[in-house]
Amino acid sequence: MPLDADRILTRCDALAAHSEQADGLTRIFLSQEQRAVNELVLGWMREAGMRARLDAIGNCVGRYEGVRDGLPCLMLGSHLDTVRDAGRYDGMLGVIAAIECVAALARGERRLPFAIEVVGFGDEEGVRFGSTLLGSRAVAGTFDDALLDKAGNDGVTLREALRAFGLDPTRIGDAAHRREDVLAYVELHIEQGPVLEAAGLPVGVVTAINGGYRFIVDVGGVAGHAGTVPMGLRRDALAAGAHCVLAVEEIARAMPEVVGTVGRIEAFPGAMNVIPGRARFSLDVRAPTDARRGEALEAMRTRFAAIARERNVAVTLEPVWEARTAPCDPDLQAKLAAAVAAEGFPVRHLPSGAGHDGMALIDIAPIGMLFVRCRAGISHNPAEAVTRDDVAAGARVLLRFIETFAPPARA
Amino acid sequence: MPLDADRILTRCDALAAHSEQADGLTRIFLSQEQRAVNELVLGWMREAGMRARLDAIGNCVGRYEGVRDGLPCLMLGSHLDTVRDAGRYDGMLGVIAAIECVAALARGERRLPFAIEVVGFGDEEGVRFGSTLLGSRAVAGTFDDALLDKAGNDGVTLREALRAFGLDPTRIGDAAHRREDVLAYVELHIEQGPVLEAAGLPVGVVTAINGGYRFIVDVGGVAGHAGTVPMGLRRDALAAGAHCVLAVEEIARAMPEVVGTVGRIEAFPGAMNVIPGRARFSLDVRAPTDARRGEALEAMRTRFAAIARERNVAVTLEPVWEARTAPCDPDLQAKLAAAVAAEGFPVRHLPSGAGHDGMALIDIAPIGMLFVRCRAGISHNPAEAVTRDDVAAGARVLLRFIETFAPPARA
Repeated sequence: MPLDADRILTRCDALAAHSEQADGLTRIFLSQEQRAVNELVLGWMREAGMRARLDAIGNCVGRYEGVRDGLPCLMLGSHLDTVRDAGRYDGMLGVIAAIECVAALARGERRLPFAIEVVGFGDEEGVRFGSTLLGSRAVAGTFDDALLDKAGNDGVTLREALRAFGLDPTRIGDAAHRREDVLAYVELHIEQGPVLEAAGLPVGVVTAINGGYRFIVDVGGVAGHAGTVPMGLRRDALAAGAHCVLAVEEIARAMPEVVGTVGRIEAFPGAMNVIPGRARFSLDVRAPTDARRGEALEAMRTRFAAIARERNVAVTLEPVWEARTAPCDPDLQAKLAAAVAAEGFPVRHLPSGAGHDGMALIDIAPIGMLFVRCRAGISHNPAEAVTRDDVAAGARVLLRFIETFAPPARA
Repeated sequence: MPLDADRILTRCDALAAHSEQADGLTRIFLSQEQRAVNELVLGWMREAGMRARLDAIGNCVGRYEGVRDGLPCLMLGSHLDTVRDAGRYDGMLGVIAAIECVAALARGERRLPFAIEVVGFGDEEGVRFGSTLLGSRAVAGTFDDALLDKAGNDGVTLREALRAFGLDPTRIGDAAHRREDVLAYVELHIEQGPVLEAAGLPVGVVTAINGGYRFIVDVGGVAGHAGTVPMGLRRDALAAGAHCVLAVEEIARAMPEVVGTVGRIEAFPGAMNVIPGRARFSLDVRAPTDARRGEALEAMRTRFAAIARERNVAVTLEPVWEARTAPCDPDLQAKLAAAVAAEGFPVRHLPSGAGHDGMALIDIAPIGMLFVRCRAGISHNPAEAVTRDDVAAGARVLLRFIETFAPPARA
């Protein structure tokens, strides 16, 4: 049952052609472009021997029955939406590789003691409505109906967008799977980081989807004329902010697998000749355990407070987002590791710094993830790249994992 | 010949009523509001015994003849335009105080061995056309005709705006004064800084209008996913930028009377979950001598280069503005200092960190400046404030200076 890595890559290219921007890839939730890729993906699922349908929130769902109809499923998949000016593998590779694995089983007429469902989630990135994982939350039964009234970037609410897409906003609950129907959720995804490349390995087994906080940090100082206020009399909010930015970096560097990032910063009033009276910056802190993440944040708070005292400014943190760590199931990790070893590769465990659909699915099933090396750790960027050999290795490991997966013995 | 400080303040209030914004003060060059204040100022000049006229670029010019008509003049004045959401003393106080001094002379029927010209410049701040000192450059004969084609914030060119104001853009040269007709230019202005307040003094004698550079500093690193790139593999452009911001502060602090300010900063792509691949910030460096300013800049360049090497990023400086130091004439400084002392105040010399019309007038005459204390160093802000006593002190010093001024002996 050979896997066709070329076809996986060709299909990633085919999906990338459906973009709202002519010169790059942007495909948001409930867009025309999503409709077009859904048609392609549903077709490939059927061609691979699955029954395929669009679910109540616009996810593509393909089902390959087991030794008899109606068995609980091993759920595989990833997402089909993208960030703006995206790469073509983030999400899509996991959906297409899973379809390819099912196609291989179907060609061999192999039926397993469980069903397989492959899901192409309609929204993971959250670009349109500013809320991530809408597709996988609907499947997990944790979709928040309050979001229906949220307006997207274009002013259209989620409720209106669902209707325009031909879906019924009152029926989103229909997408939910029952806990007893899902044995596990396993996702293949590009690493989106440089660790596997640095280690010289095509694949890695994910230990956890790191939890994270995001804050807006506000620094209040005193504005003044850039020419007339001597240095010693200043309470410069941006200088204090810069001090905090370096503290974030220093603290994160000192703690294993913790990352701290300031991605946005602004000074007010923002004139070249005015000492900033206020500065605001974003803070993103992630770690593979919630305890270590808490320690990192506390260290940063302590340093910010010291900087505020020293510079006679006010530093406050406004929380804007938090995600708890989603640990990967040890048994699924062990099975994925065995499949990696069986394919002849050294086993490398690593956390996922990025968020993934497993963060939603963990509410109804144990989760596992397999990372595939990507070039230079680049993702969320048109330069995102994988090699044919790595894709082939990832698909082979995934297929081997599927073949060795077994439903837990009933109690 | 008593000076009426209350009238000076009342007139500042009267001018502040002419604003394009209902809830604050904004008055830009060649606006309706400028027309209205010109009418008021020309009226006050005539009432004070001067011949008054609008010149070819829209400056108010009042002339008080000396012991005989046509003598070279001592030029006094300041500007009548404002920044956005301005205070009511920056500029206007110097024009009105000068008119008040002439009124006192006229009431006493005093004629001096030189004429006095009081100028209310139409543009010093440069808000509308992004180019400062348009009024005083026209008077100095250094107006650059290329600016006529420059569009202002509203898309209207300077040429069109002059015509709409009733002026002839081809005649701006008529505003120019000959070097032999101007003995000196002396301006009273609020300090716009906290030095006199900290010293407990109502007035101070300016040593120089500090020169300055402005640059846009560009930092090029490598963008990446905030969750997936370990700290040790990052080339974060904003962290490097923050490092540079602190270096600016440290270097300026270490050099007497040097100030260095980062007023604007931006990180790209500017998402909370993306390591910045690029950062840009403004740099404003000023010093009372061009040599010290050069030393400060060199020290910053050296530190930026070290930071770039250490962090494997690129740091480049793009110059956007430079003004040479305009030193105040030692003889005028001595005469102003003598007038301060004669009024019973300790003499404090200090540089001007802000730019002033003297930077243009220095091309045709020696310049001098008298600073009046303002509250908390606040300027370019509705909270700009002066006390009646300080205004009275400043006007008395200015009048005493005028009375003791003498044209240089002819060679």
